[in-house]
Amino acid sequence: MTAPPSAVGSAAIRVFGIAGSLRKASYNRALLRAAVELAPEGMTIDIWDRVGELPLYNADLDTESPPEVVVSLRNAVRSADALLFATPEYNYGTPAPLKNALDWALRPSATASLKGKPAGIIGAATGLIGGTARGQDALRQSFVYTQTYALQAPEILIASARDKFDADLRLTDEKTREFLRKYLVSLHGWALKFKS
Amino acid sequence: MTAPPSAVGSAAIRVFGIAGSLRKASYNRALLRAAVELAPEGMTIDIWDRVGELPLYNADLDTESPPEVVVSLRNAVRSADALLFATPEYNYGTPAPLKNALDWALRPSATASLKGKPAGIIGAATGLIGGTARGQDALRQSFVYTQTYALQAPEILIASARDKFDADLRLTDEKTREFLRKYLVSLHGWALKFKS
Amino acid sequence: MTAPPSAVGSAAIRVFGIAGSLRKASYNRALLRAAVELAPEGMTIDIWDRVGELPLYNADLDTESPPEVVVSLRNAVRSADALLFATPEYNYGTPAPLKNALDWALRPSATASLKGKPAGIIGAATGLIGGTARGQDALRQSFVYTQTYALQAPEILIASARDKFDADLRLTDEKTREFLRKYLVSLHGWALKFKS
Amino acid sequence: MTAPPSAVGSAAIRVFGIAGSLRKASYNRALLRAAVELAPEGMTIDIWDRVGELPLYNADLDTESPPEVVVSLRNAVRSADALLFATPEYNYGTPAPLKNALDWALRPSATASLKGKPAGIIGAATGLIGGTARGQDALRQSFVYTQTYALQAPEILIASARDKFDADLRLTDEKTREFLRKYLVSLHGWALKFKS
Repeated sequence: MTAPPSAVGSAAIRVFGIAGSLRKASYNRALLRAAVELAPEGMTIDIWDRVGELPLYNADLDTESPPEVVVSLRNAVRSADALLFATPEYNYGTPAPLKNALDWALRPSATASLKGKPAGIIGAATGLIGGTARGQDALRQSFVYTQTYALQAPEILIASARDKFDADLRLTDEKTREFLRKYLVSLHGWALKFKS
Repeated sequence: MTAPPSAVGSAAIRVFGIAGSLRKASYNRALLRAAVELAPEGMTIDIWDRVGELPLYNADLDTESPPEVVVSLRNAVRSADALLFATPEYNYGTPAPLKNALDWALRPSATASLKGKPAGIIGAATGLIGGTARGQDALRQSFVYTQTYALQAPEILIASARDKFDADLRLTDEKTREFLRKYLVSLHGWALKFKS
Repeated sequence: MTAPPSAVGSAAIRVFGIAGSLRKASYNRALLRAAVELAPEGMTIDIWDRVGELPLYNADLDTESPPEVVVSLRNAVRSADALLFATPEYNYGTPAPLKNALDWALRPSATASLKGKPAGIIGAATGLIGGTARGQDALRQSFVYTQTYALQAPEILIASARDKFDADLRLTDEKTREFLRKYLVSLHGWALKFKS
Repeated sequence: MTAPPSAVGSAAIRVFGIAGSLRKASYNRALLRAAVELAPEGMTIDIWDRVGELPLYNADLDTESPPEVVVSLRNAVRSADALLFATPEYNYGTPAPLKNALDWALRPSATASLKGKPAGIIGAATGLIGGTARGQDALRQSFVYTQTYALQAPEILIASARDKFDADLRLTDEKTREFLRKYLVSLHGWALKFKS
């Protein structure tokens, strides 16, 4: 890579990564780790792994001094150039833990950290029919309110996850790795449009 | 009321009531309390008020011995003839606390307690434009998966809640009270269809 | 079948069947024809096959004397006990021809023929991942407004349609036939709930 | 205006405008005409007013020589830098005439003219509660498939349209005019991001 430092600098994209499942052996958390590894030059993905520490959203707790984990979430989102959500689908909707993080992240609305950010959505499911589609739809519906701009294509809905990750939950399927790599390049380009 | 006891008995409907907001002064919790008071003869609504005690859904906790509060939720849903959800909308979706209760209630799928139940959805918002519509939509989307049957009409989306509840959060607006009363009669009829 | 005529009579369900695609060789139209053939005793399905004759919905045409084909649609819906929609998905939504029939069928709202009817939704797609899910979702969203009650489960989303129909578009896959047969039995039971 | 021609040239945005209603006195058609008038410097909006001439989508008609009106639609979309949809909501979904235009516009998928375009969505309704929200939602859902990028905010859902347009259907409410003007400036900026 011979691009001058300044060019690289202007194109550097910092991504806030978050997974929708709390399960230790979650394929979506594994997919997010694979994304960290496969990110193209000029993009770094930092996983915010404290989803499970957030209290259930309660406006009574959302004071001027919210819980420390909430402050951490908001700062992490605010300082990122782009967002990456790796999420399964629960009951044809966004999993509660991820929706909870969104509900906390958006407030207070005046300085809401999600507003105007570019985002990517990826997902893995064990079933044959890529059962994260409607989980992704529900997330996009929330993004209208949060004014977050998700990349529309390609859609990453990895089916039959058991065949694509090894026993240590490393993404080993080469075709899927290549697909994810290309997705992240698209996300990089998408994020650059939003960086003035 | 002179109907013979047996007729009353066959028409008795027990409703599981749940609110989507954890805020103490929530209008949706107040609306649910008003529903308890306005329920027609033959219908009793029991509010399950432990939404805030549930942990964020985590499949690793969803063992054969799940947390006690989860057992309480599942039993309460299972023993009810019908369900009543009073919910605001957060970020154009189901509030995380309510989605979390749903995510816990549906499992294990083999004996899922929500399956085939009739349900009602009501909501209140402080804004002018009844901002619970999309929260209700998201709930209905989940109901396809949980096989829950929500009454389609009338839709109860109470706008300008501040004008309809008093300082003690009692529903005082007579027109709204009458509307809610009629809704509960409809829900009663709807639930009877599902009681063999 | 030796059930007494009166019992059969009370359980007789007349179904309005409609397909979402105008294509002659449509798998969804073929699926609807298969449903006619596989309907259980006590259920007859009449296909309303004039979807392509409807003008695009225009309130200026929706006078007291609407086009004859509109009158035919409304009468067919009104006189049915239940509705059966066989639909693909176009652009993650209800196909325009089917949405158009819905838009005509609902009016005038005072006497809207769809209100309170039970319904079933089935679909076939050539792809691997049963690409009618979101077309079905969009239909269900409209059903909230039209107050139509769709059976929630099982969901019939037939993937790889080319392997399940023969060259004459007859449903030949025995497993799928059995699945559809059972679905229609469920729809029959569902419709009976709505027949006082 | 003293900006050098080249600068003006690079910022010139041509917008394809389309209305979802066929009714002559439609407020949404009127709103689109107001948008033409209020477009900021550097943006021209051309209304494609042949929605009512399109046949219902039928893959059998979608040959290598589709109907002339379809060719016109596809060319108009393809040559535009951005899209503007003015739409009511029919039965909690996209009006059939507009969905029909979308269904035609997207094909053939290899050269689909909607892909990657920026878009705006505006709407007017006569009711109090801005009843175009779910019509807009359904459109956004289709945009995931068509890979169209709608501006997320502000959302233009004009309620009580009768008070804001005069008898000749001119948008006369000054506050609404200013709101629409600002929206179009936002759309201009949004479209520029997509113009390399």
